[in-house]
Amino acid sequence: MKNTIGNSLTVTLFGESHGKAIGAVIDGISSGIKVDEDYIANMLSRRRPKDALSTPRQERDEFSILSGVFEGYTTGTPICISIPNADTHSSDYGQMQYKMRPSHADYTANCRYNGFQDYRGGGHFSGRITAALVAAGAIVLPALNKKGIYIGTHIKSIAGINDIDFTNNKEIIDISKKDFPVLDETAKDKMQQKILEAKSQGDSVGGVLETAIIGLPAGVGEPWFDTVEGMLSHAIFSVPAVKGIEFGLGFDFADKCGSQANDQMYVDGDSVKCYTNNNGGVIGGITNGMPIVFRAVIKPTPTISKEQKTVDINTMSDTTLEARGRHDPCIAHRAAVVVESVAALVIADMLTTKFGTAWLAKFE
Amino acid sequence: MKNTIGNSLTVTLFGESHGKAIGAVIDGISSGIKVDEDYIANMLSRRRPKDALSTPRQERDEFSILSGVFEGYTTGTPICISIPNADTHSSDYGQMQYKMRPSHADYTANCRYNGFQDYRGGGHFSGRITAALVAAGAIVLPALNKKGIYIGTHIKSIAGINDIDFTNNKEIIDISKKDFPVLDETAKDKMQQKILEAKSQGDSVGGVLETAIIGLPAGVGEPWFDTVEGMLSHAIFSVPAVKGIEFGLGFDFADKCGSQANDQMYVDGDSVKCYTNNNGGVIGGITNGMPIVFRAVIKPTPTISKEQKTVDINTMSDTTLEARGRHDPCIAHRAAVVVESVAALVIADMLTTKFGTAWLAKFE
Amino acid sequence: MKNTIGNSLTVTLFGESHGKAIGAVIDGISSGIKVDEDYIANMLSRRRPKDALSTPRQERDEFSILSGVFEGYTTGTPICISIPNADTHSSDYGQMQYKMRPSHADYTANCRYNGFQDYRGGGHFSGRITAALVAAGAIVLPALNKKGIYIGTHIKSIAGINDIDFTNNKEIIDISKKDFPVLDETAKDKMQQKILEAKSQGDSVGGVLETAIIGLPAGVGEPWFDTVEGMLSHAIFSVPAVKGIEFGLGFDFADKCGSQANDQMYVDGDSVKCYTNNNGGVIGGITNGMPIVFRAVIKPTPTISKEQKTVDINTMSDTTLEARGRHDPCIAHRAAVVVESVAALVIADMLTTKFGTAWLAKFE
Amino acid sequence: MKNTIGNSLTVTLFGESHGKAIGAVIDGISSGIKVDEDYIANMLSRRRPKDALSTPRQERDEFSILSGVFEGYTTGTPICISIPNADTHSSDYGQMQYKMRPSHADYTANCRYNGFQDYRGGGHFSGRITAALVAAGAIVLPALNKKGIYIGTHIKSIAGINDIDFTNNKEIIDISKKDFPVLDETAKDKMQQKILEAKSQGDSVGGVLETAIIGLPAGVGEPWFDTVEGMLSHAIFSVPAVKGIEFGLGFDFADKCGSQANDQMYVDGDSVKCYTNNNGGVIGGITNGMPIVFRAVIKPTPTISKEQKTVDINTMSDTTLEARGRHDPCIAHRAAVVVESVAALVIADMLTTKFGTAWLAKFE
Repeated sequence: MKNTIGNSLTVTLFGESHGKAIGAVIDGISSGIKVDEDYIANMLSRRRPKDALSTPRQERDEFSILSGVFEGYTTGTPICISIPNADTHSSDYGQMQYKMRPSHADYTANCRYNGFQDYRGGGHFSGRITAALVAAGAIVLPALNKKGIYIGTHIKSIAGINDIDFTNNKEIIDISKKDFPVLDETAKDKMQQKILEAKSQGDSVGGVLETAIIGLPAGVGEPWFDTVEGMLSHAIFSVPAVKGIEFGLGFDFADKCGSQANDQMYVDGDSVKCYTNNNGGVIGGITNGMPIVFRAVIKPTPTISKEQKTVDINTMSDTTLEARGRHDPCIAHRAAVVVESVAALVIADMLTTKFGTAWLAKFE
Repeated sequence: MKNTIGNSLTVTLFGESHGKAIGAVIDGISSGIKVDEDYIANMLSRRRPKDALSTPRQERDEFSILSGVFEGYTTGTPICISIPNADTHSSDYGQMQYKMRPSHADYTANCRYNGFQDYRGGGHFSGRITAALVAAGAIVLPALNKKGIYIGTHIKSIAGINDIDFTNNKEIIDISKKDFPVLDETAKDKMQQKILEAKSQGDSVGGVLETAIIGLPAGVGEPWFDTVEGMLSHAIFSVPAVKGIEFGLGFDFADKCGSQANDQMYVDGDSVKCYTNNNGGVIGGITNGMPIVFRAVIKPTPTISKEQKTVDINTMSDTTLEARGRHDPCIAHRAAVVVESVAALVIADMLTTKFGTAWLAKFE
Repeated sequence: MKNTIGNSLTVTLFGESHGKAIGAVIDGISSGIKVDEDYIANMLSRRRPKDALSTPRQERDEFSILSGVFEGYTTGTPICISIPNADTHSSDYGQMQYKMRPSHADYTANCRYNGFQDYRGGGHFSGRITAALVAAGAIVLPALNKKGIYIGTHIKSIAGINDIDFTNNKEIIDISKKDFPVLDETAKDKMQQKILEAKSQGDSVGGVLETAIIGLPAGVGEPWFDTVEGMLSHAIFSVPAVKGIEFGLGFDFADKCGSQANDQMYVDGDSVKCYTNNNGGVIGGITNGMPIVFRAVIKPTPTISKEQKTVDINTMSDTTLEARGRHDPCIAHRAAVVVESVAALVIADMLTTKFGTAWLAKFE
Repeated sequence: MKNTIGNSLTVTLFGESHGKAIGAVIDGISSGIKVDEDYIANMLSRRRPKDALSTPRQERDEFSILSGVFEGYTTGTPICISIPNADTHSSDYGQMQYKMRPSHADYTANCRYNGFQDYRGGGHFSGRITAALVAAGAIVLPALNKKGIYIGTHIKSIAGINDIDFTNNKEIIDISKKDFPVLDETAKDKMQQKILEAKSQGDSVGGVLETAIIGLPAGVGEPWFDTVEGMLSHAIFSVPAVKGIEFGLGFDFADKCGSQANDQMYVDGDSVKCYTNNNGGVIGGITNGMPIVFRAVIKPTPTISKEQKTVDINTMSDTTLEARGRHDPCIAHRAAVVVESVAALVIADMLTTKFGTAWLAKFE
């Protein structure tokens, strides 16, 4: 289904970095969900570059809900959110029509679209498209919250500097209030210093984001293919620069014995809990009622100002490139709200499949 | 789509560990692909437990192609492959109807299916279902090979013992001939020793599998959602025990600068290549013509003979469990052919989307 | 999705007329639905040729549920029903490998599958495949009945002989007990006479089936594309020989004024009803609580014994054909249970989408 | 998939009659298709009410292509076309929030969306949404034309007045140039007179549209479910007021013998043709190379000025309604271009599935 994700609640993305607008269409959503435009604006502002840590490109992200919302509530018909592009400096990208930025999608886009792609500013591959994802996520997140489901993402590491772990639900719920979502304030300073160092060298750095989802009932997901891990990973790999995802202990499982790794269980009132959460809340592809925990690695931004060897696909010859234009020395911190939004959309989709079309707006 | 994967070429899995049969239905495949039953049997034998390293359950995997193949070639209509279950010891699992095996899907299946699941031997969650995936993969793999596309998986590590890396295409093509697919024979001995140690202690170990796919053209995949990474990960997380997946440098990207991590490019005849392959052959969700490289972590088998704390969901009380029945001290080596099969099905699906219904059987 | 229908509850068909088996896989069904094998057998017997009105091919339709049912209830995992082929006279069809039967799928199958199709007995295009559809329908129909939803089909006409209309719900519920489902017994005799006449002349006749669905709540369906009419017609056109479908007044709407055609409304207790049902229970693509009523036209069976002009695709030359082999002089009466089954599957799918995965088995 | 149609080339509709904008997103289209904004404007003008035969609501349909087109060609990424709403008289519809128009979707929308639907002017159910369908169709039609595929629709009948039939390909190709697409000019006058009569009485009339598609190769379509008839009907039933569809002889098959109805075949050079086209170009769900011919019945517009019995869902009481607001005495003639557009999108989808992502823009 190409640029659409979801089975029951779907999101389709459209738009190019330097076109008229980017946007998203959400279909299959419950009628009767309250839509808070201030909340959407606030989510968008979390994604927006704001300080020396990010690109100087400034977009106001003045979104417009073209359809599917009436008198402040979702109608249940498709919601189209459009975000016009404003601060575009297309001339910065002139040299990039043929000079392929290494590790950016310039070359693969050219192969995929036979040269017809809008190459300006990364076109449809631009991180800017994630603003539409965030706006879409901001429609469903408050409905999930009302159901007691919260999603929080912190920066697990940037450039080798590590944050501490979530220790309680309040931290997961509150982390979204932070512009630079780190639990350990001293780690935050060191990370930002690393980013500024990279920037000063015309270079970039990567990191790891860790996301926790709390409040989901046990029994969500499917055994084969539409596993919780499969559904989340399918969507999360669309967040630009993500190159890996792991749940619970993830790659650390490789060196553990079963007796260390297994999550032993106990009865707690009328529910079942685990002493540990090594499986990150998902077993056999299905939620077990423990928090879902996953980590996504964000590669260093490929656009850097250092000279790199590359090709000119017009002349089919070797050349070099020092990127001009505006770019981010790190996008891990800006990606946190994108990951939360994508996770919200996937979870809302899986719950809609399980509980039906009207469930997301139903409160007892 | 629950138990179905794929957009254009789809695979649906059915069956329970101790039911009449397990199987797969492949739809959307080209007509005119030669089907080699010996090859399928050989693929299935690679997955089958064979020695002291695995469960003593012995299944002959006598598959039957019920439809979609005529006079040795695919007809283009749905192929149903059925594999009857033979060597079932259901009584071993009697105690497990209510006693939930920690980190196994017993409890989540009970939540998902409200107690109606076939609990014997893990039911629909059993690793046995992967035999059907392998049979399905064995239908498409020879067609991919004819197109010059090969998929090889080696054991990157088991219980902390590491293999060396692939160094050339021949190793990738030939690795499938090995029962225990490791490049470094000394690592193989150490890994097997670790597995037997775990077994002697009633415990289990995990590992990491690394897969390379060669021969794919540049330009396969989609920018948003149906990225190569998203499509592969969606499917690979269905391989039981997989808890993480990473492409190229994967989680090692976190500590790299852009200038170290970027894959610089050069012209090689009439094609474009990269000096490095840190992105594992995928940029912007789309193939760049370099080998696709990904790693999946396999958690230690959850079924172990050691006493573990768990719950009895019939009485809703705490209890303990020492698993009886037949189980594997490690499944990483058996999972290699499953990962190859799943990857083959995903790649065949993406190529069918790109090039159309008849392409897979078309040779110039 | 080719050989699969449904969004939430899907059915995939496989098999060829003279292959090992035909069958269906149902995915997305609720766990906890009672499965009655006698009921399935009875539904299959309604489809089976039984007397001089039909082909002499006798299949016992001994189905086998390979998966997804445990201790008499659906598990919620995919159900594979396999029906082995027994009474195959492949030699009857020898001449038909290259001689295309007019108005049958021989030629189009050859174009679609490039000559690799199993041509024996119509292969995957055979009406025999509908046995699998009926078996699948027989899994969901009792669950719908428990919800108060019933589906009845009568023969509206055969060869110009018309039946009377349904006048009450009891007739709709009871019609399935009849082997030759006609409300007016005198019309039945005349229809059967017409069929036997056609048979004696080596010819065939067509007819119209009318289906009513009662008990559906108002509010099922979608405005664009997944309308009730769109979903039903998509599936019903797969019933072999169906060439048209109409809802309510159908084509008679063309000559009506709005003031005649509109269904005026009134309040009846706490529900809303219409004085008439010209829209056949669907307005704007969505159920209005009135019975769904649609008619499907069944073309005369294309396989006839009279000499017809056709082509030999081996020699690419004109030729003639007098079909041998066993065939039906009319299939309208046998198709009634197929249409009911298909409608049941579509309705079950739409209700699963609306009310969620577990709804079909939930009874208050 | 609710408001989306298509497997490989998909269209999603959004918008409400009196909201900010309506529109469509097309995904999966080939890159490199020339986009002609004048052609789109012309197609939209064919749908637009223009004279005394239609509603006085005047929309300029000033569409804006927000994405997916760059320098006059499709990029291959999603195309979002937005058409702002301008001439909205919402106050006309004030009384209609609770008074349900008989045979219009007011009541079913209220059931489906639990009262949250935008009720103004029919909201998401308005015929106005079809402008977006036409704009989407106008993107793919020129590409189909370049492949030699043409789609023509004429008014087969309105209010009992019949047109003659298509007799050659030129008529099919040229019919789109007519505002009121009828082959027999005398029939046109009579039809228009009937419409004006109905209008003068505050009433409305219905009709039948007949569509022919020429130039398709044999071998397009699938045997089960994704038949050509199933795919087209699924989409065509979304055209508001369509209540039936038939292919070839359609319901006239019911009274024919096989020997009359079968399309006998002959060799014509290196292709195979039929002496007749009773099957309307589709056999076994798959094209046979003859023109596809289908008819759709359009019910009389439900909104009429005559007094009708209906309900007030606020007070849950019986009431009457004489519709005010602007409405059409007939929509059959305006629907012709909508049916062509929908058919174009379905055919483009099926060809994209068959021949791959890039085919639609590839010309030898």
